[in-house]
Amino acid sequence: MPTVARRPKTSVRTPLRKTFYRILETSAGHRRGWSQVFNGLLITIISLNSVAIVLHTVPELNQRYEQVFYDFELFSVTFFTLEYLLRVWVCVENDRYSHPVWGRVRYLFSTAAIIDFLAIFPFYFTLFATDLAIVRILRLFRIFRLFRVTRYSHAFKVIRNAVEDKKEELILSLVFVLFMLIIVSSLMYYVEHSAQPDKFSSIPATMWWGISAMTTVGYGDMHPITPLGKVLGGLAAILGIGLFALPTGILVSGFTEQIRTQKAPTKHRCPHCGKEY
Amino acid sequence: MPTVARRPKTSVRTPLRKTFYRILETSAGHRRGWSQVFNGLLITIISLNSVAIVLHTVPELNQRYEQVFYDFELFSVTFFTLEYLLRVWVCVENDRYSHPVWGRVRYLFSTAAIIDFLAIFPFYFTLFATDLAIVRILRLFRIFRLFRVTRYSHAFKVIRNAVEDKKEELILSLVFVLFMLIIVSSLMYYVEHSAQPDKFSSIPATMWWGISAMTTVGYGDMHPITPLGKVLGGLAAILGIGLFALPTGILVSGFTEQIRTQKAPTKHRCPHCGKEY
Amino acid sequence: MPTVARRPKTSVRTPLRKTFYRILETSAGHRRGWSQVFNGLLITIISLNSVAIVLHTVPELNQRYEQVFYDFELFSVTFFTLEYLLRVWVCVENDRYSHPVWGRVRYLFSTAAIIDFLAIFPFYFTLFATDLAIVRILRLFRIFRLFRVTRYSHAFKVIRNAVEDKKEELILSLVFVLFMLIIVSSLMYYVEHSAQPDKFSSIPATMWWGISAMTTVGYGDMHPITPLGKVLGGLAAILGIGLFALPTGILVSGFTEQIRTQKAPTKHRCPHCGKEY
Amino acid sequence: MPTVARRPKTSVRTPLRKTFYRILETSAGHRRGWSQVFNGLLITIISLNSVAIVLHTVPELNQRYEQVFYDFELFSVTFFTLEYLLRVWVCVENDRYSHPVWGRVRYLFSTAAIIDFLAIFPFYFTLFATDLAIVRILRLFRIFRLFRVTRYSHAFKVIRNAVEDKKEELILSLVFVLFMLIIVSSLMYYVEHSAQPDKFSSIPATMWWGISAMTTVGYGDMHPITPLGKVLGGLAAILGIGLFALPTGILVSGFTEQIRTQKAPTKHRCPHCGKEY
Repeated sequence: MPTVARRPKTSVRTPLRKTFYRILETSAGHRRGWSQVFNGLLITIISLNSVAIVLHTVPELNQRYEQVFYDFELFSVTFFTLEYLLRVWVCVENDRYSHPVWGRVRYLFSTAAIIDFLAIFPFYFTLFATDLAIVRILRLFRIFRLFRVTRYSHAFKVIRNAVEDKKEELILSLVFVLFMLIIVSSLMYYVEHSAQPDKFSSIPATMWWGISAMTTVGYGDMHPITPLGKVLGGLAAILGIGLFALPTGILVSGFTEQIRTQKAPTKHRCPHCGKEY
Repeated sequence: MPTVARRPKTSVRTPLRKTFYRILETSAGHRRGWSQVFNGLLITIISLNSVAIVLHTVPELNQRYEQVFYDFELFSVTFFTLEYLLRVWVCVENDRYSHPVWGRVRYLFSTAAIIDFLAIFPFYFTLFATDLAIVRILRLFRIFRLFRVTRYSHAFKVIRNAVEDKKEELILSLVFVLFMLIIVSSLMYYVEHSAQPDKFSSIPATMWWGISAMTTVGYGDMHPITPLGKVLGGLAAILGIGLFALPTGILVSGFTEQIRTQKAPTKHRCPHCGKEY
Repeated sequence: MPTVARRPKTSVRTPLRKTFYRILETSAGHRRGWSQVFNGLLITIISLNSVAIVLHTVPELNQRYEQVFYDFELFSVTFFTLEYLLRVWVCVENDRYSHPVWGRVRYLFSTAAIIDFLAIFPFYFTLFATDLAIVRILRLFRIFRLFRVTRYSHAFKVIRNAVEDKKEELILSLVFVLFMLIIVSSLMYYVEHSAQPDKFSSIPATMWWGISAMTTVGYGDMHPITPLGKVLGGLAAILGIGLFALPTGILVSGFTEQIRTQKAPTKHRCPHCGKEY
Repeated sequence: MPTVARRPKTSVRTPLRKTFYRILETSAGHRRGWSQVFNGLLITIISLNSVAIVLHTVPELNQRYEQVFYDFELFSVTFFTLEYLLRVWVCVENDRYSHPVWGRVRYLFSTAAIIDFLAIFPFYFTLFATDLAIVRILRLFRIFRLFRVTRYSHAFKVIRNAVEDKKEELILSLVFVLFMLIIVSSLMYYVEHSAQPDKFSSIPATMWWGISAMTTVGYGDMHPITPLGKVLGGLAAILGIGLFALPTGILVSGFTEQIRTQKAPTKHRCPHCGKEY
């Protein structure tokens, strides 16, 4: 019974790491029990962080609740740091990072781990930085915390699948959008430049008008004033909007297809004979 | 024959209450006869009330037809009060509120009854209130009369079913919209804040730009002026509009599906036994 | 052979009237030969009239080509008058207007004949009118000539069928649009009125903002400036745009269905056994 | 063996021309090997040209990198000229232009060859032109280089097929758009002209408002201010947007159908004989 004897021995360390791995990586387990609790906790803390990042920039709130913001920041960084270290410890359970040293190094340079790193470590540098400008820039990195939610939320898995499914269409339609934008903006530049040299100062400047017009946003800060420019702007609006709506239409249809696939197992059962088909 | 003897006795009161219940609650009866007439009358009075609420705020009309507005208000409140009392009387016919005392209390605290209450009772308080500011606030509650139409109109049943059917998709897509809004507004705040500290004063303030840009409304009161801000605004317009169009697209498809289901009885034929179901 | 004898007699007048009837009413004949030629001629003249109506309002063109505009007007009115009289003469060929006197009177009061009348007869009144203001108002009636094109163009038959097909959906969705508009505008009025009493002066005035915001036009002449107004405006944009897009989505789907029905006879033929199914 | 003897002789010249033909005309070969390499190179150079055309108009960049822009221009024109001459040489391999003289002349006047010509030859005229104004106009022709990409890129083949497939619908819906634009703009002109004679100066001027409103761009430079004008503008927004969205909706559905056709081979099974086809 040496195998039996060995088992309890390994059960001292491995199962704990495996348990943590299953809790942290929701895709590994079945999203039940602690794994689900941890996932919910993580999304909650990330959501609260996004609220804090947003409200932090309101001068009145920032002055009044400075201590609250700082305490929450401290708590978040502590939580995210512990989570980061835990993830580095357990990542070797994943077959892709199974080597105790090189596997962990490879994990550290994975997209997910880099986002996690950028979301927390700048905080530590701000503790030692004396230059306020650098501190301010480092604080911007907190926005990476928001991107973390894209990995653990169900909603983002759906949209990621939809984008991957419609990848080809999206790329094709973005090519049209870019082509249309350059053509229309170039023509508008040549037409309007002499009439409004300040606003339509160059083709890149005119592209700002082009995007605002063909996405139908229409800020109104730039618009053609010459008759020819208005005719061109009108044609661009009617013809160009169709092309600019392509990516939107594709994304909407991809998304609804994803949801339909998840909902319906596409099996029907006859109520008379009871057979599936 | 004691049961026969008891029947005529109860028929003195119950059938009247039952009749009123059937007239008032269109979902209980078959929307025929008096029930349909009452339903039409109710929608007409609510519609006239919404017209009155809207026109009441035009100073010229308010001064000229003050008496007409007041008389109509008096008539509406009387009608709605009688209807409210009738509903409280007959609600015990509904199995959910069958207890003569506690059933009625529970009915009083149902969403429908609270809306009905808020739509009329503030009027009575304005009779005794001496402070004009309070009277003005109490008058705002008349807007609840408009929400009453959502319960008795066929059109709103269709949209409610569509929303319930597409609940999951709508929630998922609203999560994207919120995420996109926060990310884009945060980035835009950091880019534009130093150039336009008055307009892009904080992330919540920038979110007003974000909503106006990505819903393609484009009021034009806020727009990026720095080159980096314009590039970011352009990317946000092209990429973000797709996500912001998701809830709209889902609602449209949910609505058309509802209509199709109502029109076509969707008969299926089993390929094994050939029977329809 | 009295019947044979009678035939040539009636053939002197009736066939000519019948021929004209077939030429004028494209739905009666098979849109071939003279009927098609006349239809094309009519659409051309109506299109040229619409060009003239549009260019007539440009001061420079009006002064320079006054004679051309007048001659074309004279030609158009002559052509339309002759056509109108011919239509009155031949209308008795239609079973609905078969009585020589009362049938013609009934035809004169049909929608089509009234539009035709309003498109030409005001011109004759301008010849005798001495008051310039009346002449100007009478000239506006020329716009009815544009509406005539809706009867003779294939394109408008398709859209009319699409609207009739989706009648119920369109009415339902317009009810939502109206409801949403009133609710959002009322709330916005109460929120913004004190901050911008000039712009958000009454609920009808605020509805102009509501339409401009929820159709995503966004003129920028009115927009909320209070924080609460911006939150409400943002919610209205995200939630309301979906409802405002309903009529558009319904019309687009109705139109594409119409085209599909016309194109495909929905019969398929198996290339192996040659049977249709 | 005279045929064998003749073959090597012709192989000296013809196969070379044929090889070049296959490389240049990607639709002739199978888009493999050199043909694919050349196609990629062409798209790259055209893309770089479009970047150069766009950035060339930014004064700072133009001054700083004047030499780079000029060198790249020289390289592009040389490349495109060589390619143009090669195409004229090899075009006789195409059955449509097989005659050595008249075939080539006919090729020179094909749309593709004219675009190619306009994209390069103006450069040679600028070398001899002394008048700067003419040089500037001739430079505009460089924009034709962008249109060349539409012939060699896969993305544009998809959109061209989509447009051809939905040709009828697109024309019909553009007729509605034009009709709606004229009607709404004419009415708005008569309503708003007296209140804002500067902005709503003529119907063509009002059409600029009409396009901006019904495409939902909403620049905000023109908007009705009279109550009647606002009511008309509101109705136009709600009713007109549906028609203006038709071309966009048709293009989106045509595009997605094209992609679906390319992906799925659309197998059908006959219900009578059960065979696929």
